[in-house]
Amino acid sequence: MEHAAAKLLPAADQRGAVPRSEMILNEAAKLFAAKGYDGTSVQDIAAAVGITKASLYHFFKDKSEIHSTVVTLSVSRLNDLVKEKLTTCRTASEKVEGFARAHAQHISENTALYFASALGYNELTNPDVKAKVQRMRDGYEETLRMIILAGVETGEFRELDVKLAARAVISCLNWMARWWRPDGPDSAEKIASDYVHLIIQGFLPR
Amino acid sequence: MEHAAAKLLPAADQRGAVPRSEMILNEAAKLFAAKGYDGTSVQDIAAAVGITKASLYHFFKDKSEIHSTVVTLSVSRLNDLVKEKLTTCRTASEKVEGFARAHAQHISENTALYFASALGYNELTNPDVKAKVQRMRDGYEETLRMIILAGVETGEFRELDVKLAARAVISCLNWMARWWRPDGPDSAEKIASDYVHLIIQGFLPR
Repeated sequence: MEHAAAKLLPAADQRGAVPRSEMILNEAAKLFAAKGYDGTSVQDIAAAVGITKASLYHFFKDKSEIHSTVVTLSVSRLNDLVKEKLTTCRTASEKVEGFARAHAQHISENTALYFASALGYNELTNPDVKAKVQRMRDGYEETLRMIILAGVETGEFRELDVKLAARAVISCLNWMARWWRPDGPDSAEKIASDYVHLIIQGFLPR
Repeated sequence: MEHAAAKLLPAADQRGAVPRSEMILNEAAKLFAAKGYDGTSVQDIAAAVGITKASLYHFFKDKSEIHSTVVTLSVSRLNDLVKEKLTTCRTASEKVEGFARAHAQHISENTALYFASALGYNELTNPDVKAKVQRMRDGYEETLRMIILAGVETGEFRELDVKLAARAVISCLNWMARWWRPDGPDSAEKIASDYVHLIIQGFLPR
């Protein structure tokens, strides 16, 4: 049996219907985000989608595969959004903000997926999946480092510890998983943008 | 039966021996940090301490009480360290750094407790304990806000969004739970101090 995990989410089919595998991942993400990996059963997921457990097993081997796919999909969508957003930015400052806004857009557009992934990394049991997700996250962080490094090289930013600077921005963005809520007073994009405007002051030459 | 949770950790007794309840909490913290709440059983904790489950139940009612005590204890120690550290700081910049260094000292001195607590907040099941921990965390964040606000009022810092600025610093510190390791190249104190020196540049008047 070929499992959906291998190809992540297929696009909606020609009739515009949401593919079954995508529905499963969406409902699973909501459950993982709300109740954690251990608190969620395959039966819960099947019930949320409105299918039987037997049907669900046509798409995914087990709960671990569903969870791995949710986490991987979140990181992969985030990386795609960052790439897309950066194409329209010119200066290093704009790019740091674009990077942060892409992250925020991911949080607000894929909220359940994001929360399930942000809180679920430590629950990944398959070492290959964990290593793959770690590589994707490293690539994401490396993108921001390269932006900051380029800013230092052109003199737009002062001489600074690039790794530390990238990590400070990413810490603010990632920590949002612990406190930001979609129904709170500020949009994720506004908060991300405010963080960058604050922190980037420390990057500019004095 | 009176449970140790009510009074948190008693001091070492007069013979200098580590009290049994403290040994239980230390071993439990290591297990929670490594295997999570669900992955740790009361039997695991008893075995790590070298006592029977029956003995352990003289000190704590159940696993949930041990876990609540670990999380509460970590936040309470952190708050104590912050208070202590701040007594020797004068300027707002020094105080922000003192705050961050206290956090880092907590991470490095109480590593297992810190990791168990940082990763375990979402696993708190008792709503009263969760509310109490949330109040303690709010107080911790409020301390930093007051420091930054005082810095703005004296003109040491520029006009800035105090809530956002405090959250940026705390995000960096808290996110260390996800990547910093005691055997890594930099001490927690060095990283915390570097973060503050970077971010505080954005607080200064230009």
